Amino acid sequence: MQLKEIGEFQLIERIKRIISPAPTNVILEIGDDAAVFKPTKNKLNLLTTDAFVEGVHFDFNHISFYQLGWRLLAANLSDIAAMAGEPKYAVLSLALPSTISIESVEEFYKGMTALGDQFQISIIGGDTSLSPDRTFISLTLFGEAKVSHLSERSGAEVGDNIFVTGFLGCSEAGLRLLQTNDPNHVMDFSYVIDRHCVPNPRINEAKFLVENFNVNSMIDISDGLSSDLRHICNRSGVGVKIYADQIPIHSVTKEVANRFSETPLSFALHGGEDFELLFTSPDIERSIGDAFQKRFGLPCTKIGVITRAEDELVVIDSEGRSSPLKTKGFDHFRQ
Amino acid sequence: MQLKEIGEFQLIERIKRIISPAPTNVILEIGDDAAVFKPTKNKLNLLTTDAFVEGVHFDFNHISFYQLGWRLLAANLSDIAAMAGEPKYAVLSLALPSTISIESVEEFYKGMTALGDQFQISIIGGDTSLSPDRTFISLTLFGEAKVSHLSERSGAEVGDNIFVTGFLGCSEAGLRLLQTNDPNHVMDFSYVIDRHCVPNPRINEAKFLVENFNVNSMIDISDGLSSDLRHICNRSGVGVKIYADQIPIHSVTKEVANRFSETPLSFALHGGEDFELLFTSPDIERSIGDAFQKRFGLPCTKIGVITRAEDELVVIDSEGRSSPLKTKGFDHFRQ
Repeated sequence: MQLKEIGEFQLIERIKRIISPAPTNVILEIGDDAAVFKPTKNKLNLLTTDAFVEGVHFDFNHISFYQLGWRLLAANLSDIAAMAGEPKYAVLSLALPSTISIESVEEFYKGMTALGDQFQISIIGGDTSLSPDRTFISLTLFGEAKVSHLSERSGAEVGDNIFVTGFLGCSEAGLRLLQTNDPNHVMDFSYVIDRHCVPNPRINEAKFLVENFNVNSMIDISDGLSSDLRHICNRSGVGVKIYADQIPIHSVTKEVANRFSETPLSFALHGGEDFELLFTSPDIERSIGDAFQKRFGLPCTKIGVITRAEDELVVIDSEGRSSPLKTKGFDHFRQ
Repeated sequence: MQLKEIGEFQLIERIKRIISPAPTNVILEIGDDAAVFKPTKNKLNLLTTDAFVEGVHFDFNHISFYQLGWRLLAANLSDIAAMAGEPKYAVLSLALPSTISIESVEEFYKGMTALGDQFQISIIGGDTSLSPDRTFISLTLFGEAKVSHLSERSGAEVGDNIFVTGFLGCSEAGLRLLQTNDPNHVMDFSYVIDRHCVPNPRINEAKFLVENFNVNSMIDISDGLSSDLRHICNRSGVGVKIYADQIPIHSVTKEVANRFSETPLSFALHGGEDFELLFTSPDIERSIGDAFQKRFGLPCTKIGVITRAEDELVVIDSEGRSSPLKTKGFDHFRQ
């Protein structure tokens, strides 16, 4: 059934049946002019927003409505994770063509709810409207953080070790495979395809890190390692030295890069949307890496050190040669 | 200069120069993964979001970028006003074609800032991305409210008087004139055109009402009086009796309705986006209306009474005849 057959208000009723009920400190949710909730005492408030545009951020030939709902929420959650925050409430703007099926919209909410339930997130409001052609989605997430936990981009100090969680370049590998439209790939390379379509934001991992170690600065890897390192350096007024062969790259990503005649390193340095954490700490790799692996079954790897600003951003290759770190950051308006 | 010439990151730098600096309780604004701010003690949090799609909510033949920025913020502010809340912080998602000029985007932010400064609102974050064709904008507004001030849609009681602020149907009159593409209209009918393009959200008016009178339920008129009355009735489990000749209609709106061979009443009942307040109160018209007029130079008019649910929604015409209130509510997917 298409949206134009049931209309806006019936759609909202159907959405309310899918999303999880809000906790008791939410006083008003969907259905009034604004959502109303009680803040938690002695916490800072966080607010982040991310929009996805059909044909720019996603393509329905490669991603399902369920996966899209998951992925949009994951992108926002990852921004809260980067602040070591606790996500709480979401409001969603959806602009949809009237020919879309109600079942597709329900799948979108089911995907979002499946991920949101892992972190007790409630969708407490939104705005649903017509779009003449493309689907536009914008999600805003409200979160809270302890003052002592707050991890900004600007705190990196000279001598800090630089760490990343998980593996880099997986999302890029998954996207490249999907773009070939070969259905066998989904079976054969499900690890990287899942990392692209249904990524896991590192909310619990960030909390664990700030609670147990000295984290001076943190960002999530959404633009790509090379861009996000530059964000930390610019904001902190420092340089970096990265060791190429220490960057954690999954064996599946290596295989995919080879298929496309590219180096795994280019996927890991410039591929965006892995939603892993990039952070700097004076603590040593052994203590962080071991504890993290034990707790999450995932690597947390030292990939370099923070240097003085005048040393700039450099990559050291496996033979010890140094070259400037090139940023191939995604710029929306300059493609 | 077009966006594709300066790119996403230069655009963000230019936007930061336009928007007003955030107050000291904002710890991090644009430039980190999420905005961070301190909540105010003993207040409830409000969150509302509204999206505008080019070709659905606005047309650049009829509205400038400056006016669009103002109007988008006004729509969100109006939702906070309906809760008698205090607006605080905004985050904005913008998806723009790369051929748009940087000056246009700056005008958009100037319009938003001009209105926002009236209420000390800070834009503390956002997301800027490419759209292949249409402009898509979603604004989320965070506000706060005293528990004792909260005015929901669901509190209307049988016997309450029903009030509206200002005049109804102005925005519809303005839009109709703009759609004729006759430049003389902008001069001759600037009152209603301004009410459409740069409406004034009733933040201070709502605060005044809840502080000085008994307000049992409140909503802002965004869908149109007939639709928004129905929202109050549905949520409160009541009916209404509306007196057609008591609905406040501006003389300019009457003139415009006549030009289009329509009744002024149809503009006032079904025209949306006036962003006036609709509320119910046991207090009498004389006390509310006089005080409101004195304070704001604007009428606050009793237009009817709340009845039992089984009496349904009726309109009484100037000869005392009763007919069911028809809702011509705008439904995004059913046009």
